[in-house]
Parts: sequence; structure tokens; C-alpha cells
Amino acid sequence: MFTVLAGGVGAARFLEGLVQVVPQEEITVIVNTGDDLELFGLRICPDIDIVTYTLAGVVDQERGWGIEGDSFACLEALARFGHPTWFRLGDRDLATCLHRTWLLRQGRSLSQATAAIARSFGLALSLLPMSDDPVATRVMTDEGLLDFQDYFVRRGWQVPVRGILFQGIEEARPAPGVLEAIRGAGGVIIAPSNPLVSIGPILALKGVREALRATPAPVAAISPIVGGRALKGPAALMLEGLGLEVSALTIARLYRDFLDIMVIDREDEGLAGEVEALGLQVAVVDTIMRGKEEKRALAQAVVEALRGWSGR
Amino acid sequence: MFTVLAGGVGAARFLEGLVQVVPQEEITVIVNTGDDLELFGLRICPDIDIVTYTLAGVVDQERGWGIEGDSFACLEALARFGHPTWFRLGDRDLATCLHRTWLLRQGRSLSQATAAIARSFGLALSLLPMSDDPVATRVMTDEGLLDFQDYFVRRGWQVPVRGILFQGIEEARPAPGVLEAIRGAGGVIIAPSNPLVSIGPILALKGVREALRATPAPVAAISPIVGGRALKGPAALMLEGLGLEVSALTIARLYRDFLDIMVIDREDEGLAGEVEALGLQVAVVDTIMRGKEEKRALAQAVVEALRGWSGR
Repeated sequence: MFTVLAGGVGAARFLEGLVQVVPQEEITVIVNTGDDLELFGLRICPDIDIVTYTLAGVVDQERGWGIEGDSFACLEALARFGHPTWFRLGDRDLATCLHRTWLLRQGRSLSQATAAIARSFGLALSLLPMSDDPVATRVMTDEGLLDFQDYFVRRGWQVPVRGILFQGIEEARPAPGVLEAIRGAGGVIIAPSNPLVSIGPILALKGVREALRATPAPVAAISPIVGGRALKGPAALMLEGLGLEVSALTIARLYRDFLDIMVIDREDEGLAGEVEALGLQVAVVDTIMRGKEEKRALAQAVVEALRGWSGR
Repeated sequence: MFTVLAGGVGAARFLEGLVQVVPQEEITVIVNTGDDLELFGLRICPDIDIVTYTLAGVVDQERGWGIEGDSFACLEALARFGHPTWFRLGDRDLATCLHRTWLLRQGRSLSQATAAIARSFGLALSLLPMSDDPVATRVMTDEGLLDFQDYFVRRGWQVPVRGILFQGIEEARPAPGVLEAIRGAGGVIIAPSNPLVSIGPILALKGVREALRATPAPVAAISPIVGGRALKGPAALMLEGLGLEVSALTIARLYRDFLDIMVIDREDEGLAGEVEALGLQVAVVDTIMRGKEEKRALAQAVVEALRGWSGR
């Protein structure tokens, strides 16, 4: 049994590899919900949907989010009423959000809604939101405190980040099954997602970091930073903005208290000694996932490292 | 000032004529909401939207409902989750329903939401739902008691109707402005809509029939029955099912207690004597509205009859 902590696109691509080497029934994915937003009364869960669409094979491959071939007729019609259209919610994508909102209004939890939607898309793995309670990631910038999607989508993450805040995190409880999936796993994987705003909110939830430290399972993390660059998104800019070195070594340091295995790219082989000096095992592999085969190979390497792990 | 009691398509076509002969600012339309439904958590008001889209010039002319050129991507995607797709809600049409639902959840009344949407579509007339409270038209059939849209859209009104019920009508209050618009009008017009399920719910609301009887304004009705046939929809079949004659004379009888002027088609000229015998003034005109000019001519004739009315 493998448990994966996941953000959006990077995690989804890694999971495309993992499902090629491990049966879906043996995988639990805990997904960030700090990016969630409400628009036109609909509950939108970008990371959950990216993972669902990707594993269902319907994702828009080029963008990494949304449904392939989707149209935007409803969104464009909403502009007439003054609703914002910068969050590009397609017509088919909207159906998912409508159904989720409908389930929530019927009294279902986000966990239940997420599981039902994943089943409707034919997925057999366990997809868990990190929490059924609201957590809102906000970023401190020179332009003020911004909602995450305002920063990320509307402003295209081109604003320096001075701080990150997870609103509601103190009151939020991990969703049912989250702590159990960490404690009971055969291996835990931190996907190559943004450590600050994708994995960060999950780790900030009460009990999660403790469960990661206490689990008998080995914990591996795949660095989203390769050669001092972020594979995608604002991770590099954010680390910089917070005064941190843009390096796989920084990722290892951020996870150090619960991590066993750090998976870094061949390009970063020179960092292996420093990572090992943190007390971690290092796996040096190709982490850049261009095609299906490369995704499989990365997942295979991570799974082998976890299976071959011989204790702390 | 003219006040029009309206259902969907027939009323909308008549109103297309009325706005050619009377400034929109002088028109109040009271629209049936007994046909309303909730699907996927959205509040759908078919008659209000038909009137809005028609007057805004965006209606699908051929079908008489929905938005011209609309797509159905969201609806088709909702099928994956088990939602019914027989109610053909297009992507742009859905935007209207999403916005309405959003306004209602923000605490606005249906009246306020309807007015806001009408303004967004550039309308200057007053569009009032008959009530802000829920009223659900249901029809008794051999297959049981059916929700109106189940009977009307899903089964294509091909089931004999044994009775009609307006659920919630006893508790429902006319929307703000409804009774005032009837009492304060210079002329009241009952649009050529189904007398049983379009005009019927409005008339069944507490105080409406009394206001129609008491108003100093003349009240004219345009028959939706011509030559013993319904111009569209199930009016003829419904009248038959209830044991009523399918005739403009029946329409006059249904409205007799508050009606002053009955507008019938030239084809029904032979009924004029019998209608007059009910104590009504009769206007014989072309009521079949094929094009813009015919709509204008019908509205002109009705307005003239009302203006020329010389007392009961």
C-alpha cells in the first residue's frame, strides 16, 4: 500500500506513472485543498480535479488542467452578469464542480463527494482531500494578501511572495482516512509538487507531520526542483522570495524531520553528498517526465527505493 | 401602463409585438413560476427565461426556448454523474441559472434576481415572477402525479391529464408589485398562454383574481385556442382531458369573472356572438403570429381595444 501526498499537475503526472507499476487499489492519494475556491456558488477543487482528470485520461495534456477539448460557453456567458472569467472553467469541468456542489449541498462531505466523482471517472484508487474543512492558502505580496488563485491564475504568479498563510488550518481536521493512510502505508511518497503551497498545507494540518514522523513506512520525496529551476510553476520564485536556496537540497531540508529517501534528478547528482549529510538516503534518477514511459520509470524507481529501504 | 400575465413561448411572442407599440418602461410582465424546477442544485425558471431571451433577441427562434446557437457540453458531462439530461439546458442558458442560483443563495429574492438578470440582458420592462415563494405545478395522469416538466418535456405532454395541482399555492404570496401592477394598470392583458398551467397558477395565487376583478383597468385576453386547436403545446389536450370544449369560448368562460375584452382569431369569428353573450366585448383579429409585423399588429389591436374600452 502506497500513500501519496499530492498537489496538482506535477503530482498527477507522477501518479500516471505510479498506476502503471502499482494496482490502483493499493494507492491512496491525499490531495491539497488549500487552492480551492468558490466561484458563482460552485466549489472548485483544482488539485483534486487535475489528479482525477489526469488519471481518467481526459485531462488537457498541454495545459495540464481541465478537460481535453472542453469549451467555455458557460463561463463566457457568465461575464454578462459580472462574474470573473480569469479562472478558466470549461463547460465539462463545470459539470464536475456543479455535481460536487450539489453533493455538498445534499450534506455529503468533501471526502464523500471526491470519492464519488473519482468513481464516476472510473478510478479505483482512494482519492482523499486533505481535509473536509475549509483551508484557504493566501500569499503575502507587495500588492497585499492575495487569495491563492488570484495570485496563481489571475496574476500568473508574477508577483514576489513575502509570506504564505493557510487560513483555517488550526481548526481544520485531516479528512477521514488521511492519518490512517500515512500510518498504515507500506511506503509514503511526497509527489514532485510545490513544497510551500501544494505539500505545505497538507503538512500544516494537525497530526499530519506527526503521523509522517511516526509511521513505520519509509517516506520518499521527489524533488520538484531540478538544476536550480522549478519544473513548473512558481516554486523557484517562491523559495527565492522567502530567502531560500532554489535547490533540491532545500526540499530535503523542508521535509527532513520525517523524510527517509530523497529522490533527485541526475542533473543534481552533485548534491547527493549534502543530502546524505542530512541523514537521508538519496536516489538519483531521471525525474523529468516527458512521456508515459518516463513517468513509469520514475514511479518504478521510487517504488523500488521504498521497497529496498532497510531502516533509518 | 400595461400589465401582462404571461407563460412562456406564446406570451414571449406576444410581448415581442407589444414592445414595438408601447415603450418597455410602460410594461410590467407577471410570469408563471409554477413550471420552475431544480436540477443539479440550480434554480431553473423556464417561463421567465423564455420571456427574457425572447425580448433580448437571443432566443432560439425555432425552438422558442433556450439561447440561439447554445451548446450542451456541460449537460452532457453531467450525465456521467447520473443527472438527467432530458431537460435541455444549454451552456449559456446554464450561466443564467447559475447566476440566479448564486443570487438566491446570497439572500436575494427571486424578484430581485429576475430583475437583475433582465437588466443584464438589456431589458427595460418590469419582469416579475408571479411569486417569490415556491409553487410547483403537477399534473395527475394515469401514470401518477407528475412534476410539470416531467410531463411537459420528458414525456412530451403525450399523457392524458386528469387533473392539475399547484403545490404550495395556498402559502405562496404574490411577488412584490404583482397586485399593484394589476390594480394600477391602464390595461391588463392575459397573454395567449395555456390557461390551465401558464395563466392558471398566477390566477390561483391569493389576491390575484380579486385584483383582476377590482382593477379599474380593462382586462383583455388573447385566446391561445384558434379553430379548436391549440396554437402550440398541450392546451387542447389538457382542456379535452378535463372535459372542456377546445374553443376560444372556453377560454372566455375561464376568465369570465374578471375579463372585459376577449381577443379571438378571425377563424373563430363565428363564436363572437356566444362570447358577447357572456357579457364581454369581442375583438376579432389575426392572432397567429408568424413574423415581427404580425406580432406588432396583434399587439396594436389589443392596445387599441384596451384604449378604446368604454366601461363595463
